[in-house]
Amino acid sequence: MIDFQKQMQFLMEIDKLKTITRRSLLLNGERRENDAEHSWHISMMALVLYPHADAKKLDVLKAVTMTLIHDIVEIDAGDFYLYDSNLQDEKEKKEKAAADRLFGMLPNDQNKHFRSLWDEFEAGKTAEAKFARALDRMLPILQNYFTHGQSWKEHNITYRQVIEKAEIIKKSSALLYDFIVEILNDAVEKGYLAESH
Amino acid sequence: MIDFQKQMQFLMEIDKLKTITRRSLLLNGERRENDAEHSWHISMMALVLYPHADAKKLDVLKAVTMTLIHDIVEIDAGDFYLYDSNLQDEKEKKEKAAADRLFGMLPNDQNKHFRSLWDEFEAGKTAEAKFARALDRMLPILQNYFTHGQSWKEHNITYRQVIEKAEIIKKSSALLYDFIVEILNDAVEKGYLAESH
Repeated sequence: MIDFQKQMQFLMEIDKLKTITRRSLLLNGERRENDAEHSWHISMMALVLYPHADAKKLDVLKAVTMTLIHDIVEIDAGDFYLYDSNLQDEKEKKEKAAADRLFGMLPNDQNKHFRSLWDEFEAGKTAEAKFARALDRMLPILQNYFTHGQSWKEHNITYRQVIEKAEIIKKSSALLYDFIVEILNDAVEKGYLAESH
Repeated sequence: MIDFQKQMQFLMEIDKLKTITRRSLLLNGERRENDAEHSWHISMMALVLYPHADAKKLDVLKAVTMTLIHDIVEIDAGDFYLYDSNLQDEKEKKEKAAADRLFGMLPNDQNKHFRSLWDEFEAGKTAEAKFARALDRMLPILQNYFTHGQSWKEHNITYRQVIEKAEIIKKSSALLYDFIVEILNDAVEKGYLAESH
């Protein structure tokens, strides 16, 4: 019963993920999306796109658990912008403290389970982590593309920066990476993304 | 490759779930939540609470797939309010047409897979469907409770109506049902929920 209370407290606490705003826009361009919406969307991508991962074996439940929980730490740490690379150390420190507090609200076995999946996601070495990270990287590119590069333009992002960050997709799926390269080339051609400064 | 294009078109189309507004508020009371946020939240509930389902065997991936996809039909059909029971026939008709169109965007095998899970969720007979439906029913009650019954009051909902709808939770979990009954009794006591008209 104590366990159940802890679970409910955690589940109510994470409602806050709905208030963490990202840089990416909804595809209709009407507003920025939040972390809860983003987490749902890449979880749907995981369910639909897992056959395209290059790994021979992929545990879909594990991958989907990662996509569902990967941003929960941002409730405390906030959303770091992918292209603010100078903030990397601060990001890691804040997110680890957030994982301690947030997953730490759960009963011990579930804390360990979710924390180890989150650590695995962050390390990006297993098939599931590579796949989940690839989706997390893909979606903002698609959101930018379909809103004519609105967020790229706002932050003066160039093709070189995006393609460098997109490398991570190659680690999971050649097909998804090739698709994203095509999208990025088309984005440059259409004027959504600057080739260079 | 045609399959991949279909998958991407589906995945971009369902971005619209982020624009379907529900009656329930965020726990901070600041605004109504949307279907994408709701779907993420009950998927997290599934990952955390599945040990409390009464069923001896529960396929967690199946349950989470149901919670992730269950509201996608509302992109076309809109959100029907639980207590508008006179609209039940119209709801069913619209949602079936929506499932035809939306899951029908996917390659044939995935269309069949998601459609059969959605049908199973709607029928509410298997362990996974009962559990997913219980969570879908629980969350709005908790959201109402923690926002002092704001949405119940707005729509003149009474204890009798809520407890009747909460019956569905009992089909999956005695523990979750008992917890919700406690919450509802407390809601009446605190004046968040009217005992009767």
